[in-house]
Amino acid sequence: MGKKIYLLDSTLRDGAQAEGISFSVEDKLKIVKALDALGVSYVEAGNPGSNPKDLEFFKKVKDMKLENTKLTAFGSTRRCKIKAEEDKNIQSLVSSGADTVTIFGKTWDFHVTDIINTTLEENLNMIRDTVEYLKSLGKEVIFDAEHFFDGYKNNPNYAISALQAANDAGASCIVLCDTNGGCFPDEVYKITKEVCEKFDTNIGIHCHDDCSMAAANTFMAVKAGAVHIQGTFTGFGERCGNTSLVSVIGCLQAKKGYECIPQENVKNLTRYARKISEIANFTLSSREPFVGSSAFAHKGGMHIDGVCKSPKSFEHIEPSLVGNERRFLTSEVSGRSTILSMIHKIEPSIEKKSPETDMVISKLKELEYNGYQFEGADGSFELLVRKTLGKYKPFFELVNFKIIGEQPYNDGQSASALIKIIVDGKTEITAAEGKGPVNALDKALRKALEVFYPSLSSVHLMDYKVRVLDGKTATASMVRVLIESGDGSDSWTTVGVSADIIEASWIALVDSMEYKLIKDIENKFRAYL
Amino acid sequence: MGKKIYLLDSTLRDGAQAEGISFSVEDKLKIVKALDALGVSYVEAGNPGSNPKDLEFFKKVKDMKLENTKLTAFGSTRRCKIKAEEDKNIQSLVSSGADTVTIFGKTWDFHVTDIINTTLEENLNMIRDTVEYLKSLGKEVIFDAEHFFDGYKNNPNYAISALQAANDAGASCIVLCDTNGGCFPDEVYKITKEVCEKFDTNIGIHCHDDCSMAAANTFMAVKAGAVHIQGTFTGFGERCGNTSLVSVIGCLQAKKGYECIPQENVKNLTRYARKISEIANFTLSSREPFVGSSAFAHKGGMHIDGVCKSPKSFEHIEPSLVGNERRFLTSEVSGRSTILSMIHKIEPSIEKKSPETDMVISKLKELEYNGYQFEGADGSFELLVRKTLGKYKPFFELVNFKIIGEQPYNDGQSASALIKIIVDGKTEITAAEGKGPVNALDKALRKALEVFYPSLSSVHLMDYKVRVLDGKTATASMVRVLIESGDGSDSWTTVGVSADIIEASWIALVDSMEYKLIKDIENKFRAYL
Repeated sequence: MGKKIYLLDSTLRDGAQAEGISFSVEDKLKIVKALDALGVSYVEAGNPGSNPKDLEFFKKVKDMKLENTKLTAFGSTRRCKIKAEEDKNIQSLVSSGADTVTIFGKTWDFHVTDIINTTLEENLNMIRDTVEYLKSLGKEVIFDAEHFFDGYKNNPNYAISALQAANDAGASCIVLCDTNGGCFPDEVYKITKEVCEKFDTNIGIHCHDDCSMAAANTFMAVKAGAVHIQGTFTGFGERCGNTSLVSVIGCLQAKKGYECIPQENVKNLTRYARKISEIANFTLSSREPFVGSSAFAHKGGMHIDGVCKSPKSFEHIEPSLVGNERRFLTSEVSGRSTILSMIHKIEPSIEKKSPETDMVISKLKELEYNGYQFEGADGSFELLVRKTLGKYKPFFELVNFKIIGEQPYNDGQSASALIKIIVDGKTEITAAEGKGPVNALDKALRKALEVFYPSLSSVHLMDYKVRVLDGKTATASMVRVLIESGDGSDSWTTVGVSADIIEASWIALVDSMEYKLIKDIENKFRAYL
Repeated sequence: MGKKIYLLDSTLRDGAQAEGISFSVEDKLKIVKALDALGVSYVEAGNPGSNPKDLEFFKKVKDMKLENTKLTAFGSTRRCKIKAEEDKNIQSLVSSGADTVTIFGKTWDFHVTDIINTTLEENLNMIRDTVEYLKSLGKEVIFDAEHFFDGYKNNPNYAISALQAANDAGASCIVLCDTNGGCFPDEVYKITKEVCEKFDTNIGIHCHDDCSMAAANTFMAVKAGAVHIQGTFTGFGERCGNTSLVSVIGCLQAKKGYECIPQENVKNLTRYARKISEIANFTLSSREPFVGSSAFAHKGGMHIDGVCKSPKSFEHIEPSLVGNERRFLTSEVSGRSTILSMIHKIEPSIEKKSPETDMVISKLKELEYNGYQFEGADGSFELLVRKTLGKYKPFFELVNFKIIGEQPYNDGQSASALIKIIVDGKTEITAAEGKGPVNALDKALRKALEVFYPSLSSVHLMDYKVRVLDGKTATASMVRVLIESGDGSDSWTTVGVSADIIEASWIALVDSMEYKLIKDIENKFRAYL
């Protein structure tokens, strides 16, 4: 393995500065857990003093056992003319309990005199005092040199003296920040190289993507000697975003042999990128380098032909190295292989060129055209294949359901559902209340079905997601509902699409129950083999 | 003005290779018109021989008078062992009527021997013959050296001999392509410099973004001497996309003084980027450098404070230079300045340190803790401020509503809503049907309110978005609903949060109607001033 690079993920701090991002405490804990599992060296998680959510987060995260990651609190140098030990913000960093603290300080003279309105000398003292104080408490201190490149271009001596202050006070890493994202790779290389030659401390890099240069500036800083990289996992952050650590791991580790995370985790890159985007409720671009769904998707005929002869003809890297997969968009060549493996689960005798395979593909295309998406809905996909092959028998018949929602309401139960179903000629009518119409319907359906199928009592819904497919018709827009269910030993996802959110949820709910019942029958059958 | 750079836009050709993109002939004509108006030097538009749509396009585009742009047909060198004048594809390029033709040819020896299965010698002949033939017909020929960087790294002598063949045959520009998008800025710089030193012809660059390096590689090639840049306007293309010409114009012209398009058009960059994305039905990322809606959006309190003192403190460029605008987002991490500017809209006498400001901030934090988010919900934010300051009087009182949803249903109306409200002591009870419960409730509320407030008939809902905030409680999860409304002259967004999607939608709907009514009163009042 090559040179070690330390990654600091700031999804929870700089990422939270992105428009449209708002993390709950639970979201933050989940992201820390994912980054720890992947092996990111540092996770920067805000300041417990800044708001009640961060305070609650720092309390709860203490119970989490981290294997690979050091949690880092983030804050500024002490304010002017206040002792570090008397500065409220610095005290809250200390009380966070984090062993590592990132302190950002001014290195651009213009910011010192015109934005925080102090003297150049006092700013150096603020840096020195803050780092010294935290070091005296046994903390590891990372110093973020805010606006370093702009500062260096304007007044190199002053910018360097700010780094010197942090270095002398004991910072274990000095991070050069292109805070405004306006720098270019050639200057980042040159300036970083000069800094690396001046200091023995670890040098880091922190870039923004305002000129589409974040990944390249980071790469060139590493070429110049930087060993610590800050970014957010999938790149979202203030304005145009931060350096994407996914791209960093892809470029530096998968392509250039540096060691950013444990090598065995690189193949999980795509999965974690999608997972973290999902938690942040942030749609990962299909074009995202390395991990996007289109990153290895080929549409042009000549490209598909080339890749079939030799993948390296039109792929810069083998997609499985980063856990992604190759897709052919115009031909069904690759589509068929995936679809065939599902068909074989149900009917092993069917071949790639059988008419049944065509039937499944054309049904799939029709549903996808109507807004369905089966990539993340394995349960519904299996049912679709079964229905198309005639390997399906409904478990119940719906006579009707009625949902009533009302305001004002009592006891937190704002909706009720009434349902009537038939199973093997027997009718069951029942009702349930819930928080909203979908919750009430879910409970009522389950209650009616459990009379006939007691095993359904082990099923619980783990996740429920809604996507509006076409905003243009507003409250009558098409919506796609995804439901993830589990029964303790297994989990599966089902999908429904409709202009009515209740209907879309109903379709996904029914698939979920039927998938479980088919699974139970199969398991019983296998027990006899 | 600085050095002239020739841009070639391949949105219609390489862009059409992107997943999810499919242009109609009308779309293509509109895009050509937009790029011509902006002053892009070349527009590459496919091959009339490849499909009937392109054939129709080339016929129709002849009637279009282009002021600044040269239309370019695109195709490969002649096939092996066929004369150029007998090659069907080359004939269709000729018959396209385009005065400029882009010809791509192999320069990576591995592609010659293993993908198109011919000899290295014959490939050089194919390049030479094709360029010579088109030159003999008076065409301007741009030679795209496919996979040039991969080829050069594998066999520099052969890759150079391929360029030599195109150059000797009279190509007016030789374009170095990183077809697979796997190259890095340092090597692109070095290799491009070597090529520029060897040839007198114009050298061009064509990059893909598979390593997030397209913009940087393009920039470094220009530093090395390239004067022609290929890309797609907003960056979409095969796999992860091409170099974005928007970023090129932003970086090279707005920041570095090169001349890519007429200087007076740079301020239209944002408008054209959004227009072309709209035509392609491709959502422009809010984070898109220079032109995205978040590109100059500030959320962190210290950033907003800094930008208020001096924009350059947190902006790498003045947003109006590229036709974009600065925005301050409202959130718990944003500071008093943003919140104060909204307070001043309602009550100019309140100051930053007034107790009212604290009240608004603590209300905001409390609501955000419960899942609200106001940065995209200006309408609800104004109402929140009004309510906190006591500058609000409800426009109606809800007695109750009931929603009924049922399956099976008729006429596509799966839900109905009944509503009873009181306005100034007068009761109105009414009902409506809709596609799903929210749609029905929206219609019923509007119907009841219009009796008292006829101006609401001009309000239409433009967008409706749902986010599930915490998946763990499945169908009882908290949801956030965002509604965008318009009345022809103005648009506003409102937000609601609840475990019940109907309640969340109700909150956002009521805010939307009340915002409109307050706006109407204010406008009337202003008319008297």
